[in-house]
Amino acid sequence: MERAARPGGPTIAELGESAVLARILPRLAPGDTTLLGAGDDAAVVAATDGRFVVTTDMLVHGPDFRLAWSTPFELGWKAAATNLTDVAAMGARPTGLVVAVAAPPATPVAVLEGFADGLREGLAVLAPGAGVVGGDLSASSVLTIAVTAFGDLEGREPVLRSGARVGDVVAHAGERGTAARGLALLFAEGTDPAGMPDAEAAREVRARHPELVRAQVAPEPPVAAGVVAAVAGATAMLDVSDGLARDARRIAEASGVGIDFDARALGPDLRVALAGAEDHGLLATFQAGTRVPEPFQVVGRVVDDPGQVLVDGERAGADGWDPYAGWDGSSG
Amino acid sequence: MERAARPGGPTIAELGESAVLARILPRLAPGDTTLLGAGDDAAVVAATDGRFVVTTDMLVHGPDFRLAWSTPFELGWKAAATNLTDVAAMGARPTGLVVAVAAPPATPVAVLEGFADGLREGLAVLAPGAGVVGGDLSASSVLTIAVTAFGDLEGREPVLRSGARVGDVVAHAGERGTAARGLALLFAEGTDPAGMPDAEAAREVRARHPELVRAQVAPEPPVAAGVVAAVAGATAMLDVSDGLARDARRIAEASGVGIDFDARALGPDLRVALAGAEDHGLLATFQAGTRVPEPFQVVGRVVDDPGQVLVDGERAGADGWDPYAGWDGSSG
Repeated sequence: MERAARPGGPTIAELGESAVLARILPRLAPGDTTLLGAGDDAAVVAATDGRFVVTTDMLVHGPDFRLAWSTPFELGWKAAATNLTDVAAMGARPTGLVVAVAAPPATPVAVLEGFADGLREGLAVLAPGAGVVGGDLSASSVLTIAVTAFGDLEGREPVLRSGARVGDVVAHAGERGTAARGLALLFAEGTDPAGMPDAEAAREVRARHPELVRAQVAPEPPVAAGVVAAVAGATAMLDVSDGLARDARRIAEASGVGIDFDARALGPDLRVALAGAEDHGLLATFQAGTRVPEPFQVVGRVVDDPGQVLVDGERAGADGWDPYAGWDGSSG
Repeated sequence: MERAARPGGPTIAELGESAVLARILPRLAPGDTTLLGAGDDAAVVAATDGRFVVTTDMLVHGPDFRLAWSTPFELGWKAAATNLTDVAAMGARPTGLVVAVAAPPATPVAVLEGFADGLREGLAVLAPGAGVVGGDLSASSVLTIAVTAFGDLEGREPVLRSGARVGDVVAHAGERGTAARGLALLFAEGTDPAGMPDAEAAREVRARHPELVRAQVAPEPPVAAGVVAAVAGATAMLDVSDGLARDARRIAEASGVGIDFDARALGPDLRVALAGAEDHGLLATFQAGTRVPEPFQVVGRVVDDPGQVLVDGERAGADGWDPYAGWDGSSG
């Protein structure tokens, strides 16, 4: 059995749904655009642009996170961060989230409280003004979190994956491989002798490599850089969730171009920088001659090799990440 | 083990995430307000009103549905129907959904195809013009579905739970207890000798009581009646998901009034009409003298007894439904 560092106190089943929600909702700050928050059949959010951007994502205990490795706070933070980055990758300003949680009835309410605190703080740091607009609480044997995030384009056109053109420069903002290094450490050393995730072993990993573990369990992606890139005229952009190589290929295929990375710009460990998933940086292209805005760094150029990813002119492998690959079906 | 009537064919793990999505996405029709559909980091939806209505809900195999009792098509239909009704209960016109699914890797892809077909047809029948805007596919040992639905207020104010005033009439649109009767039949007779949900036993229940089972597994709530009520001046409204008594109490508490039902108007089986959950009808209040629009029927009046539900002037019990009550923690 996986051993998690779970708080004690009453469980969801002991308190009942209404009392649990009464403890959770006050921890969630409304957003600047929230016209009507939780408590009715639906919420009402301002969309002064006349359009809204929307993305949804589900996180499942086992394949997507482990309570032995992440605190509830970190889980809430990461749930916010990963969805905010998808909104940012369209060039939109995040305005809010709705969050549905399905949890085992024996889950301590303190787990949900910590999760709510992480959501709130993640929003406050990464997307000030965005709030949690509504939610849902269900029962399941597997802790499962579904986040839907919204954004406002503020009159701009969305930045798609399909807009890169030969001759554009390729730029990246955020970590390159750090989250993957943290996950590899947790898999290698954050386990008990039987190989199951273990909270105590994970604490020791954290003590030795706090930044690598934090990049995995509570990433700080460059959410604000999405609007910055759009304003600067980004021609294409996406959230790097599955690794730089695999996500660059998505721009390459959607745009009918090649993405040629400059190996030196990607740092000393090229393989991890290209293959490492879950950094949630932003990969964007800009017309040549554009002053590429901070925190973006130029890491390559767009070439005429449709659908291909290259490094220093050589075609690269298709490294990436598939949620079904390598998962053995157990939650531990 | 629960025996479900599952289709054969390749599984999600056999096809891989990308190939699965390539088979699912063409089954989902875009909506009239979809400016950018699935395929980028996020979708873009028109919100010409300058606001949007949003609600989210998670459905979990076990507490919320059984594949032995529902076909994948029915599951998709119900996922759409229940969320559309929450949008309708605000007086908004549904414009679209995003859908996240977490499924065991051994799930036949045909299950997801049937689910997508049910979503599409449910939308086409219940909310023409609304489409599936985006989605997500994850791995889990428990089939889990999260739907987030959107709506447009078309310039009207949202109809809240808090607007009922003493002297208003109380009106209801939809079924009263039918879905609960269907569920009770499935629990009583749709099981194997060990008491587990069984597809063959459920087929026999269906043959004898098609309308009761359909009301449970593929309800047809009066989604269009939400806008009708708002236009007619409804002072309060909600989706009756947890039973008429429990949901009426929500209006009573939010509005600081009493809801007094007329027993004769509720039909012959008063107990089931008041306590039966999951009909997803609409309960609304209108100023006295308002011509209550079809398909609403007058079922009571708003009285000066704050927070109370009454029947023919007598206070009623707090019958209702809690997702954690009576669930034994197994998925079967």
